[in-house]
Amino acid sequence: LNSSHEVEKFSILRIKNEERIECQDQIVKEIALTIFFNDTEIVTILCSPVHLNFLALGFLLNQGFLKTKKEIKNITLEERKGLVWVESSRDVSEIKGVIEKRLITPGCGKGVVFFYHPTDAILSQKNTSSLSLSPATVSSLMKEMQERSFLYRTTGGVHSAALADGKNKNILFFHEDIGRHNAIDKVIGQCFWEEISLADKIVVTTGRISSEILFKMAKQKIPVLISRSAPTNQAIKFAQKLGITLIGFVRAGKMNIYSHSERIS
Amino acid sequence: LNSSHEVEKFSILRIKNEERIECQDQIVKEIALTIFFNDTEIVTILCSPVHLNFLALGFLLNQGFLKTKKEIKNITLEERKGLVWVESSRDVSEIKGVIEKRLITPGCGKGVVFFYHPTDAILSQKNTSSLSLSPATVSSLMKEMQERSFLYRTTGGVHSAALADGKNKNILFFHEDIGRHNAIDKVIGQCFWEEISLADKIVVTTGRISSEILFKMAKQKIPVLISRSAPTNQAIKFAQKLGITLIGFVRAGKMNIYSHSERIS
Repeated sequence: LNSSHEVEKFSILRIKNEERIECQDQIVKEIALTIFFNDTEIVTILCSPVHLNFLALGFLLNQGFLKTKKEIKNITLEERKGLVWVESSRDVSEIKGVIEKRLITPGCGKGVVFFYHPTDAILSQKNTSSLSLSPATVSSLMKEMQERSFLYRTTGGVHSAALADGKNKNILFFHEDIGRHNAIDKVIGQCFWEEISLADKIVVTTGRISSEILFKMAKQKIPVLISRSAPTNQAIKFAQKLGITLIGFVRAGKMNIYSHSERIS
Repeated sequence: LNSSHEVEKFSILRIKNEERIECQDQIVKEIALTIFFNDTEIVTILCSPVHLNFLALGFLLNQGFLKTKKEIKNITLEERKGLVWVESSRDVSEIKGVIEKRLITPGCGKGVVFFYHPTDAILSQKNTSSLSLSPATVSSLMKEMQERSFLYRTTGGVHSAALADGKNKNILFFHEDIGRHNAIDKVIGQCFWEEISLADKIVVTTGRISSEILFKMAKQKIPVLISRSAPTNQAIKFAQKLGITLIGFVRAGKMNIYSHSERIS
């Protein structure tokens, strides 16, 4: 997809102290994507208009609608209308609980919403990955992601999230989105679709780390999460408990290691 | 509320190039707040543990559950449990549509969700406020908010939103939260509770401006919205259409005016 798909030009007035310049500026595009799961409308998300299939898959996976790629029967995207249908062969009775819980407790419409279940079995398993990395690698992964992020450099209006290999310590792919959750969900969705295990990988992001982001990582068994921004206290507590190395404020050779620093060589 | 209520100390490993320092760091707190409206559970939000009443009121107002302060019968906050009940005398049949729409179309659980109705009558009215301000005022309002934001300076992990007077151009109050939507909702909630009209005020925020944030401003008839960050294309288009002056990237004497620059003197 070319950049015109992701940005739009606007005439703006730019002011620098006493100077006033009428100029063209590149602005990041926003669309509303409505996700359907087996004919049930699940959610509408404001997002960047790229890799919408990955966003839908990542979202449905995080929320418990999907488990494996095999159960996907069809994905239909109507990009112009902002609609995506994911059809699954998963047994309806199994998903019914997920949908009903959502209907009874809508939990809608906010910047951040709470959807993990602290009783999830997967969240009681401590990550014991022996992956290790140096501070120099942490810095260079963050630098590489930001340099490759065309949209961020052009518009300043997106978050990025990248998947990096735990062995070779290189970035495998990355996504950008106006929402920090969406960028992470696109990474998770691509891994799901391409059947890439996250258990021996590193996730790098520009966004702040709340417990909700941390839980998405824990469910995918990611051992190391690196952010340019701040974590919350709950994110640190769960990272400590779940065996995840959480690194924040990665900027110009500096960083804070909040948990499981034994993975930092 | 003192700062210990909003931050928690953690032992971290701080790395600066070759240097490694074990130290204490102040981390921003996160709680989950569940909002009930007349016994119906509406939403659970991850947020900062302060001014939760204002957050609940701002959220319910934005979502169409509330109209005027008179209809509030009671607000009960159980802060430790993260629960708030807002009881309203508003005619149930009037709210039924809002709740049912949410139950049928749950729209849950994401970084950003879409809840405005483009047919809302209020959104067809163009803002004609004669408020005007200078670039120097824009810069100084942003600077003042950031200087006063203790949590931001301490933790780097929050967004701020402030209400400024349109005449005297001073900051009346401001709120901080781990979510950029929450900070804005707290400002709107406080105005609702204290019966302050927003029609002759300025809102200043650190967060990015999506169409959803812009619509919250439009509903409250705010004529000027100032951000430290980027807008999306949809936010600019609706600002143009709805008569709102949208200013972004306000940093060190610089700024971009995206719409209705006639209010900039």
